[in-house]
Amino acid sequence: MKKQELIENIRRKKSFLCVGLDTDVKKIPPHLAAFDDPVFAFNKAIIDATAPYCVAYKPNTAFYESLGSNGMLAFEKTVSYLKAQYPDQFVIADAKRGDIGNTSALYARAFFERMKVDAVTVAPYMGEDSVKPFLSYPGGWVILLALTSNQGAKDFQLTECAEGGRLFEKVLEKSQEWAGEEQMMYVVGATQASLLSEVRRLVPKHFLLVPGIGAQGGSLAEVAACGMTEDCGLLVNASRSIIYASKDVDFAEAARKEAQSLQKEMEVLLQGNK
Amino acid sequence: MKKQELIENIRRKKSFLCVGLDTDVKKIPPHLAAFDDPVFAFNKAIIDATAPYCVAYKPNTAFYESLGSNGMLAFEKTVSYLKAQYPDQFVIADAKRGDIGNTSALYARAFFERMKVDAVTVAPYMGEDSVKPFLSYPGGWVILLALTSNQGAKDFQLTECAEGGRLFEKVLEKSQEWAGEEQMMYVVGATQASLLSEVRRLVPKHFLLVPGIGAQGGSLAEVAACGMTEDCGLLVNASRSIIYASKDVDFAEAARKEAQSLQKEMEVLLQGNK
Repeated sequence: MKKQELIENIRRKKSFLCVGLDTDVKKIPPHLAAFDDPVFAFNKAIIDATAPYCVAYKPNTAFYESLGSNGMLAFEKTVSYLKAQYPDQFVIADAKRGDIGNTSALYARAFFERMKVDAVTVAPYMGEDSVKPFLSYPGGWVILLALTSNQGAKDFQLTECAEGGRLFEKVLEKSQEWAGEEQMMYVVGATQASLLSEVRRLVPKHFLLVPGIGAQGGSLAEVAACGMTEDCGLLVNASRSIIYASKDVDFAEAARKEAQSLQKEMEVLLQGNK
Repeated sequence: MKKQELIENIRRKKSFLCVGLDTDVKKIPPHLAAFDDPVFAFNKAIIDATAPYCVAYKPNTAFYESLGSNGMLAFEKTVSYLKAQYPDQFVIADAKRGDIGNTSALYARAFFERMKVDAVTVAPYMGEDSVKPFLSYPGGWVILLALTSNQGAKDFQLTECAEGGRLFEKVLEKSQEWAGEEQMMYVVGATQASLLSEVRRLVPKHFLLVPGIGAQGGSLAEVAACGMTEDCGLLVNASRSIIYASKDVDFAEAARKEAQSLQKEMEVLLQGNK
């Protein structure tokens, strides 16, 4: 999906919500155990309920890998379902991959050729040749980890570099030599909203994928205030607060309400941005 | 597997060789296409041929994921085969994972509970809570990326920190607060042999997993000279130079010869270490 198409979807749907499909088989409603593939059944119901209110979905590979090859099948079926039924949704494989060049090329093949996602999250630690293979697919995006939403972000990402700036700033600067805003986004956690303005100085026009509202405690209004561009420039992700809004038979309806509530909040923020 | 057991295996087999099972379905001998699972058939033959000469195997998940759920099945079958037939082999899932705490916990569940590998490679960028969930399995090891073998290693890993030292040194220091040498190893590329002595100053007793000899050009003798401890303290990995030693029907025999040749070289280096 091209950047302009994503921007148009955001304007049309008045939403920059990404729904995180972090589907833990141990947390889904018990009645789904009757299905052949409970994880896929859960995802399908969540997607059908929330699609009007979001522009992106982000299944995190960890939750699927924890179920072995059956889990990966559920992952693949989820992406296929999204692509077939909701082709205007931006699909992100939250995989945080990154390896030496010839190996990253295999990950890129897995996600872009086989699964046909729009974007993959990539870890920057191994540098240029670990990221570039993900950039060789037309229409495919890299979403590079810059400043993550977790406590551990402070351990290395906030390290001051002798040349000036912190490590996450070096990642933002260096990686712009590899691709521009039409192919690269950055992960910046909502729990780091105070640093979002600093991120924006380095990447004024890039889209940012912002996890950390909801269960992790970040504020949507603060994220919008510090990070929104004239094209919105944000995909704000919520996972647990939507998909586990209810743990009973009404889980999809509860997820719909939660997604709709976030969309309404986003609609106001987008209007205020005009 | 405990550290002492690994050390004893190295002494007994006179080898610190790790065979990298980076099995690319596009590169294996064509006659294997007749098998139900060509990747597993290839791995099984490579393992049977090389097991006497090595102490560890390291399948890289990228190669299996590129085949989707069938590939992950081949990965699982490979680990199960190793654990059943060669219980003295140290099995490393080269996955380079790392995510926020609750998500890393799912990766840890996948690799340690489901697949029962001995170790997982983990990327440090997201810090403490992204690594710790991998440390909660008795007998399970984290092999943390410190200084990788690829060109891109220079982009961030060699960044000078304002507080002194380079980023890879900060990773080596900080991570020792999370686990000791009985549960943590570090990836240090053979192509960085000149820096191995500096790594050893910070982690004098830890095992290092050293990729990059063979196809990537690192020297085994140089690695041993700069990195070997009194307990050896090294697992040196070769992948492509062994598993693709021949691309014909004699691939397993060619792999055996290549592994044996490296083992002979290692035997001499271990003797010289006494």
